[in-house]
Amino acid sequence: MIRFNNDYNRAAHPAILQALAADAQQSYGGYGVDSWCEKAADEIKKYLSCPDAAVHFLVGGTQANFTAIDAALRPYQSAVCAETGHIHAHETGAVEHTGHKIITLPGHEGKITAAQIAAVGEAYRVSPIREHITQPKLVYISFPTEYGTLYSLGELADIRAACSEYGMYLFVDGARMGYGLAAGDVTLADMARLADMFTIGGTKCGALFGEALVITNSALKPDFRSFIKQNGAMLAKGWLLGLQFSVLFENGLYFDACRQAVELAMDIKAAFAARGIPFFVDSPTNQQFVILDHRQIEALEGRYTFEPDHDVDDGRMCVRFCTSWATTPEEADALIGDIGKL
Amino acid sequence: MIRFNNDYNRAAHPAILQALAADAQQSYGGYGVDSWCEKAADEIKKYLSCPDAAVHFLVGGTQANFTAIDAALRPYQSAVCAETGHIHAHETGAVEHTGHKIITLPGHEGKITAAQIAAVGEAYRVSPIREHITQPKLVYISFPTEYGTLYSLGELADIRAACSEYGMYLFVDGARMGYGLAAGDVTLADMARLADMFTIGGTKCGALFGEALVITNSALKPDFRSFIKQNGAMLAKGWLLGLQFSVLFENGLYFDACRQAVELAMDIKAAFAARGIPFFVDSPTNQQFVILDHRQIEALEGRYTFEPDHDVDDGRMCVRFCTSWATTPEEADALIGDIGKL
Amino acid sequence: MIRFNNDYNRAAHPAILQALAADAQQSYGGYGVDSWCEKAADEIKKYLSCPDAAVHFLVGGTQANFTAIDAALRPYQSAVCAETGHIHAHETGAVEHTGHKIITLPGHEGKITAAQIAAVGEAYRVSPIREHITQPKLVYISFPTEYGTLYSLGELADIRAACSEYGMYLFVDGARMGYGLAAGDVTLADMARLADMFTIGGTKCGALFGEALVITNSALKPDFRSFIKQNGAMLAKGWLLGLQFSVLFENGLYFDACRQAVELAMDIKAAFAARGIPFFVDSPTNQQFVILDHRQIEALEGRYTFEPDHDVDDGRMCVRFCTSWATTPEEADALIGDIGKL
Amino acid sequence: MIRFNNDYNRAAHPAILQALAADAQQSYGGYGVDSWCEKAADEIKKYLSCPDAAVHFLVGGTQANFTAIDAALRPYQSAVCAETGHIHAHETGAVEHTGHKIITLPGHEGKITAAQIAAVGEAYRVSPIREHITQPKLVYISFPTEYGTLYSLGELADIRAACSEYGMYLFVDGARMGYGLAAGDVTLADMARLADMFTIGGTKCGALFGEALVITNSALKPDFRSFIKQNGAMLAKGWLLGLQFSVLFENGLYFDACRQAVELAMDIKAAFAARGIPFFVDSPTNQQFVILDHRQIEALEGRYTFEPDHDVDDGRMCVRFCTSWATTPEEADALIGDIGKL
Repeated sequence: MIRFNNDYNRAAHPAILQALAADAQQSYGGYGVDSWCEKAADEIKKYLSCPDAAVHFLVGGTQANFTAIDAALRPYQSAVCAETGHIHAHETGAVEHTGHKIITLPGHEGKITAAQIAAVGEAYRVSPIREHITQPKLVYISFPTEYGTLYSLGELADIRAACSEYGMYLFVDGARMGYGLAAGDVTLADMARLADMFTIGGTKCGALFGEALVITNSALKPDFRSFIKQNGAMLAKGWLLGLQFSVLFENGLYFDACRQAVELAMDIKAAFAARGIPFFVDSPTNQQFVILDHRQIEALEGRYTFEPDHDVDDGRMCVRFCTSWATTPEEADALIGDIGKL
Repeated sequence: MIRFNNDYNRAAHPAILQALAADAQQSYGGYGVDSWCEKAADEIKKYLSCPDAAVHFLVGGTQANFTAIDAALRPYQSAVCAETGHIHAHETGAVEHTGHKIITLPGHEGKITAAQIAAVGEAYRVSPIREHITQPKLVYISFPTEYGTLYSLGELADIRAACSEYGMYLFVDGARMGYGLAAGDVTLADMARLADMFTIGGTKCGALFGEALVITNSALKPDFRSFIKQNGAMLAKGWLLGLQFSVLFENGLYFDACRQAVELAMDIKAAFAARGIPFFVDSPTNQQFVILDHRQIEALEGRYTFEPDHDVDDGRMCVRFCTSWATTPEEADALIGDIGKL
Repeated sequence: MIRFNNDYNRAAHPAILQALAADAQQSYGGYGVDSWCEKAADEIKKYLSCPDAAVHFLVGGTQANFTAIDAALRPYQSAVCAETGHIHAHETGAVEHTGHKIITLPGHEGKITAAQIAAVGEAYRVSPIREHITQPKLVYISFPTEYGTLYSLGELADIRAACSEYGMYLFVDGARMGYGLAAGDVTLADMARLADMFTIGGTKCGALFGEALVITNSALKPDFRSFIKQNGAMLAKGWLLGLQFSVLFENGLYFDACRQAVELAMDIKAAFAARGIPFFVDSPTNQQFVILDHRQIEALEGRYTFEPDHDVDDGRMCVRFCTSWATTPEEADALIGDIGKL
Repeated sequence: MIRFNNDYNRAAHPAILQALAADAQQSYGGYGVDSWCEKAADEIKKYLSCPDAAVHFLVGGTQANFTAIDAALRPYQSAVCAETGHIHAHETGAVEHTGHKIITLPGHEGKITAAQIAAVGEAYRVSPIREHITQPKLVYISFPTEYGTLYSLGELADIRAACSEYGMYLFVDGARMGYGLAAGDVTLADMARLADMFTIGGTKCGALFGEALVITNSALKPDFRSFIKQNGAMLAKGWLLGLQFSVLFENGLYFDACRQAVELAMDIKAAFAARGIPFFVDSPTNQQFVILDHRQIEALEGRYTFEPDHDVDDGRMCVRFCTSWATTPEEADALIGDIGKL
């Protein structure tokens, strides 16, 4: 079986496993105060054009999301996101578990717009019964979105402007950041300039596990390690996170590995398109959502894993093919060959 | 000014103020363990055909809602309600503040259906990623709804069946219960039979303040007073609540006072209809939502208070006229007269 | 039976009931935005020498405590209080229910000292593992304490200084504020100058119910009504609270009624002392904790109610006699007479 | 520098790193539903004599503690532990952050007794104001304790009996379980028989990271994965946890590695004792707390790392020497030699 079911089905990039083995005899202080975390933060900050950014390393994505949101909001404040936003749709109410409402907006291909955000902000601003509703204070978007789509730099700037206009924080969930950077016109420096906080995903981009959380807004920095610890997100052997992000960022491995995954995804996308197979969304990243009939699914599922997303109509289903840093050109070629035969 | 803006703009029914004055020299034990609360519970239970029901008295509606929901749910479980549901739309995220997600359903005139509830239950039941989403465990409906509409007995029975099918609790917010009972085909005994918990609102139905919470499901009864205290909902001088509900229920005053309010509302509704003024919803209870143009609003707002609900289009607005236990036939007649002149 | 069991066993001061009856035909806007609440705030502010203070009216004491503390603290911050502090000992974990740890200090007669507070602050300041512990950010004291004792003005000033030194808020629970003001050397203006927030209790000092929450620290004022609503502490008919506090404060009734209760308590205290009966604490306020043997308890319990506090040793028990705004000189005299016969 | 500062200063046992490298080309399903987790659970259950136990793998200790406690308690229920308990002293209020109070008991060398627990249970049982206090529902102990001490099998059985008597759950934090099993008379089968839930620590016992949570009480098993996900404790690449615990348990490596650490600790302990150096507690496990003067500290700190615990008096400090699965006999011998020269 060749796995296109997701981008977290293999352990880690060989360079990480090698570095881990090479370093195994060393010992370090605990809880993320160590030379590896320091180095990793420095390597990441080279891309940010934001020397004052705080960079923390957390274990997982859900954890990073609710820890950051809980730290940013006061009890009566809420987060705003697309109906398909991961915090709303797939995190078991983790944000609400910390006490905060999520206000959802209908999305288009996983994305929301500056105008929608402004409308939420304006509704609160003019509300005559403000104390009866929550204050929308943080906008959550993902880059890429859950459907693999991307915000353009212009769209992000507009969202930033709407957030600023209404005093909202902008938080970007970058669980798949590497794939987004490879495909769009946005850089990490843009993220640092436009978002108040964002994550750079490791788990889905070559690491064993781990998310880097970048905080650029000074108001959100103080005592952030207390939030990490309180939410169970502080790894005892924190240097394991630092080491991984150091390996990923010191020579651009993070970008290269994700770029290859996106290129292979584009080849696969082209093969589906050539075959006349429709797409659920037009995704420029490593996740491709295509609509297959049952005969086509049967033809492919013997040799490849891929993920059902939803039923489209009688006999047809939207499924996801996902490349990753671990996908090889040979694997992609095999799939492309079989798509041609559908 | 004659007030039709809401049903909580006057202190309390004279019978309550008299009883309070007459009882002022008595002293009682605290926190709702007293003869008045006992009597009030007994009076209410006469209408329930459910001798084992637990009846508690809480101060306010938001408080009663989140205390009951918090008590019923475990952390990963969520409440289901209409988008217009009071807990979702007007309680400042109080339910989320206790840690629980609210799953919203598009409503029709403030109501949701058994089929919608079953769909939510079924989606969870068949979900292959159940641990990534919350368990829908409690259905919240209001009777009457925020738009004054009512569930029929048949609709309620269907909702109960859907809840039972999927292991969900049914919680009915009866902040305006009296008006609903006066207008529909549902009795308190029906409520006790069909709901796991429901409130009988005092604040909007003749009391100074106070909501009676009725719990019929044995699983939800133990230690409920601990939840009341923890949530700040236990009045030190609890007998003040017991006294009020005793006065309201011992001779059916609750039902009579609300019935008159509904009758006057029906007269007002007929006057609007006779004048050809459109309704936003067809409400059989004390809240009437009508669509007026600015000239009409101007004509009425000098003498009557009423509440803006939302803009309909250029020059027209949906506004609410609300009668209450305190509305007099003379006040209604005055309004009816002026409606006729619009 | 003559009741000395607590200070919330009678409805309300006659002046309040009269004002309520006189006003019953009036109607008001909801949720505490009304002329009575405005007037009550103004009357209270006359005593504060702090024109910018925010004054809110909440229904109950537990509610006021956790709402204020939840509003003041970020998630990793904790409250500090005596082991006997009401929020720790008698509120069913309400503060923890909002997510915050309480750090307890051993008290002396219900009181804690500036030195203890400073020690807690210093321990955090110098901690090398600060992110593994909570930040002590708010000091909770009660005035009078749960044992009826009082902080002197000097002690309060020292506590304020310790709080300021370590960046902590000072919150004073004044559920029995009136009795404390009558007995000690502290004024409401002192409270406003020294505390960041404090309550002025109505429930135990002549009102049917209600606590005034005074906020003097500007950082704690914004959007406070949102916290009130979210925590279920916003009374729909908010003017009922404003009316009561207006009556209590416009002619000094609050102070007079509580002063009489303290004077009667001092007479009772003198009677116990004259009879050689030991005190558990030396309380200058309306709560007197005396140690009685079973024979003495039996002799009194036929005619008076009083509250058991704890067993002292074989055959002896500490019990509380509590006067209130409703206690008459005749009731006190009766008790004094019977104490003389013990 | 030779590190005795803690037992989590080195990556992982070589066998784990080898297994990880050997498995790196494999791919797996996500979120802990994979063959490695299944195998690891099976290997652990061989030691439990409890075929129905549920075994889950979480990333960290704080996370495992608050997730388990949050899942077990309803909002008004509290956890009971020693003042030195990790959840109270070193987890940034994580348990309170989930809404639950912790009731602390004075401990002796980190331990609490069945009698203390029974007293807490009894106090609640007989309380006349039960709804004003939290229900003590879960007892938290650590094995070994934070001071390296152990409960004997008899003590554990007594604690279990007290918990059963008062309807409390027993939760054992086994972050250092391996060291405890090596030193005391308790087996994993005893734990499974006596505790409702317990953890088997990986992080401090040879793994890169990870805690196995064993649930034996059927009431606590349903939907536990929902709690794991909601609390951010579900590793995307869950098989990394399963693989590690499989390696640790399939041939008893977990027990062997920890036993050696304890043996070396006993040699070091003997060396301190021979030199007449006093111990803060008499610990039979891998943590040794000794009282050194500044000259002795200076003599050792050039070559060894160890951790300050607290100041004892002028010139003397209690410090911790900690061996681990990674400590070599040569490292221990070096320290022993230098202790002899103090």
